[in-house]
Amino acid sequence: MDLSDIAALAQPGDRKVLLLVLDGLGGLAAQPGGKTALETARTPNLDALVGLGGCGVQTPVAPGVTPGSGPGHLSLFGYDPLRYRIGRGVLSALGIGFDLQPGDVAVRGNLCSVDPSGVVTDRRAGRIAADAARQACDLLAEIQPSGAEAFVRHVKEHRFLLVLRTNASSSADILDTDTGRTGVPPRPITARSQGAVPAASAAREWVERASFVLADHKPANMVLLRGFASLPDWPRFPDVFQMRALAIAAYPMYLGVARLIGMEAVQVEDSPDALAEELERRVDEHDFFFLHVKGTDKAGEDGDFERKVSVIEDVDSIVPRLVDAVGGVTLVTGDHSTPATMKAHSWHPVPFLLSGGPAREALTTSFGESECARGSLGHVNGWDLLPMAAARAGRLAKYGA
Amino acid sequence: MDLSDIAALAQPGDRKVLLLVLDGLGGLAAQPGGKTALETARTPNLDALVGLGGCGVQTPVAPGVTPGSGPGHLSLFGYDPLRYRIGRGVLSALGIGFDLQPGDVAVRGNLCSVDPSGVVTDRRAGRIAADAARQACDLLAEIQPSGAEAFVRHVKEHRFLLVLRTNASSSADILDTDTGRTGVPPRPITARSQGAVPAASAAREWVERASFVLADHKPANMVLLRGFASLPDWPRFPDVFQMRALAIAAYPMYLGVARLIGMEAVQVEDSPDALAEELERRVDEHDFFFLHVKGTDKAGEDGDFERKVSVIEDVDSIVPRLVDAVGGVTLVTGDHSTPATMKAHSWHPVPFLLSGGPAREALTTSFGESECARGSLGHVNGWDLLPMAAARAGRLAKYGA
Repeated sequence: MDLSDIAALAQPGDRKVLLLVLDGLGGLAAQPGGKTALETARTPNLDALVGLGGCGVQTPVAPGVTPGSGPGHLSLFGYDPLRYRIGRGVLSALGIGFDLQPGDVAVRGNLCSVDPSGVVTDRRAGRIAADAARQACDLLAEIQPSGAEAFVRHVKEHRFLLVLRTNASSSADILDTDTGRTGVPPRPITARSQGAVPAASAAREWVERASFVLADHKPANMVLLRGFASLPDWPRFPDVFQMRALAIAAYPMYLGVARLIGMEAVQVEDSPDALAEELERRVDEHDFFFLHVKGTDKAGEDGDFERKVSVIEDVDSIVPRLVDAVGGVTLVTGDHSTPATMKAHSWHPVPFLLSGGPAREALTTSFGESECARGSLGHVNGWDLLPMAAARAGRLAKYGA
Repeated sequence: MDLSDIAALAQPGDRKVLLLVLDGLGGLAAQPGGKTALETARTPNLDALVGLGGCGVQTPVAPGVTPGSGPGHLSLFGYDPLRYRIGRGVLSALGIGFDLQPGDVAVRGNLCSVDPSGVVTDRRAGRIAADAARQACDLLAEIQPSGAEAFVRHVKEHRFLLVLRTNASSSADILDTDTGRTGVPPRPITARSQGAVPAASAAREWVERASFVLADHKPANMVLLRGFASLPDWPRFPDVFQMRALAIAAYPMYLGVARLIGMEAVQVEDSPDALAEELERRVDEHDFFFLHVKGTDKAGEDGDFERKVSVIEDVDSIVPRLVDAVGGVTLVTGDHSTPATMKAHSWHPVPFLLSGGPAREALTTSFGESECARGSLGHVNGWDLLPMAAARAGRLAKYGA
């Protein structure tokens, strides 16, 4: 369903909605026939919510597709991530909490190595050390092209963020200079439409100066740019769902995605208690609450099955506080799976539970991948979850007479 | 799948198809852990059909969306109700059995209250009594604008139907005069495209005269118009599915939706026996039969769980007659859920059964919400059911070589 269709049905309702995201929640068994981290964890409170409501599994992007954090969260907010695409440059800015303004053109940069003829020999400057990369970024930050203000932030390893704030309004419709290959020079900056000429001119001048500034800084003696993008002009979540929305998280990426669609966002310490306290403090001001737990994903990425179990148990212990505070509809899921056995995000569907409001028999009373795969709420798309929660909160009117 | 794709695959087949709709069939348990009305009802004949075929649950419009009767039925006829949208005016005409002609512009009207300056003070004329509303409609029915014939029918409470039959052909692309708010005057009649000018002119004259005709009829001293619409030009069901189709129902709305897509439609008394008799009488002339039972929805809307149980049992008793008469594929479901506990339509998926033709193991032998949620046919969209039934009837050819 389009967001415009949802907006046409949305109405104020009595019940509030809580979305609790355990990042990378879905997992795999440590050995064949074994249990996943979620199935291993003792989760009496989440299990009770399943029994009162129901559960299922959700696919954030599409079957077989491993979601990044941006698309995974957009999906949970009701935005089909294949229709609502965040450019790389914008995601990069959100990830480090850069305060991107409307009209800014953001792009992700790589420090790279080129030979004396300008041909790329290593797209990542030999996986340059963070210190050396930061030094190079300090030099790049000095460059100010004519007709624009330029901001450079080191991100991680060889990666940096470049933001161009041009005097004339400009689109970000500019080709990558990174061809994805070595043995060829970087592609020259090329505007793909007339509206992108101001940012393209600034970028061209910035890149040329960068080549001189870095000339003696082997292996990082050149830059590659990829994913020019501006803040998107999308329907705002509070307008679509008629809910005043608050995001509570510890990491800039999640606050950034939430702000991108018009949620208020507040940063707290990285602990379940900090999430609960902030929620309790702010619960009267909003109708929708997105709470983000990072630990599950980190443990998965680190391949630490036991720590993932323990983070889930810690979160379970605050669930009654959260549910009591909001007193409405509760949706618990992840933005993607991060099996500890894979040490990475994966494409596996993500278990979810939905509780509160009128419901059918749950068919199961435990929260885990296998039980959710045969749960009463079936297999759904990630972006269908929020309308399902809104319906239970009495916030969607009938479609057609 | 698009209707054009279905049409390309449709072929004549040996088996006929019966679609038995128990309006508002889906429900909820009367108390937590209890049974729904369908699960409570003794339905040996429907259960036997499940065992011979299979069952599942279907979502008529989209997850979380509560369907109106129009969209709910379109979906069961194979038409995705978010792609095939019936305007409010047309639905209103179908609901009271007004014989809408191609080219007619239909719109739903509200009797409302305005103050001496023309500002709307009550959008429903203080929920005016039916008698007073009927009187006002009698006055409105006298108004005949130049260049068009106008028809007014009282619908219910403050609501009426206005149909404009213009001399020149006209589209219905006209803005609502109802702004949805009080404290402002009605929006003037505004054509949104040149093709709508003839109907807009007639509507403008009609509204102006209405303001004089009703001037002394407080609280109903003005009208608001909402949802200008014409008969849609959609693919016809008999062409898409290559089946001569007959609708048998007691209420105008369902006959109207069926006629809208080219089915033949016949009105009978509101009883299971009347449906069965008409089916038996007409079975040789058609390939597809849509039978509509209203009682389940009425009982649900009235909050009468026991009556819903008893209507389902009454219908179950005629199922063998229906199946014998058609002797092909049987599809039984609802157009939406109407839980007696909610006294209203709801978004909950609707149980369905499909029997006849080659089938897998059913996994269950009883027809109810929980059994269907784990039934062999899974969770599907409402508009997928008719292709599934057509396939079992041998009426869909292979796609691709």
